[in-house]
Amino acid sequence: MKFVAKVYVTPKPAILDPQGKAIANSLHSMGHSEVLDVRLGKYVELKLEGDSEAAMRDAVEAMCKSLLANEVIEDFRFDLSGYEEGSQQ
Amino acid sequence: MKFVAKVYVTPKPAILDPQGKAIANSLHSMGHSEVLDVRLGKYVELKLEGDSEAAMRDAVEAMCKSLLANEVIEDFRFDLSGYEEGSQQ
Repeated sequence: MKFVAKVYVTPKPAILDPQGKAIANSLHSMGHSEVLDVRLGKYVELKLEGDSEAAMRDAVEAMCKSLLANEVIEDFRFDLSGYEEGSQQ
Repeated sequence: MKFVAKVYVTPKPAILDPQGKAIANSLHSMGHSEVLDVRLGKYVELKLEGDSEAAMRDAVEAMCKSLLANEVIEDFRFDLSGYEEGSQQ
């Protein structure tokens, strides 16, 4: 079975985010005064093949902890869903 | 009214994604053979203040087109929702 995992990695709320701040400043200077705050994170889309959704969920959790996110400064969450070859997700 | 916009920027399907490929290779070398493909994108969380959801939607669309995404090589989509001060989104 094929699965697609959508992983969202964001800086923890207490961590400074200079890239987000730079984006906010750029948006302000472009006239977007409605912007209060910006945080920049990563979005990782993984295509997986495995026997069960539970096993894939454990695998993605392990990947996030070991490689995709730095848990000292980042939070992560992910959605996992089935995926059919040739379909648009 | 306050809103939070969650913007997802991903490389277009036809575009090579060397960062995603590097992540896939690392995961394979860590024993995650269930990984078929990885695409790396950006996740931007914007806090906004404005009068109406429709106006904020137009503003976020304009921000994506002018700054957050490069439409030549990237796709974007976003969710917009109300947001209360002090709540966890």
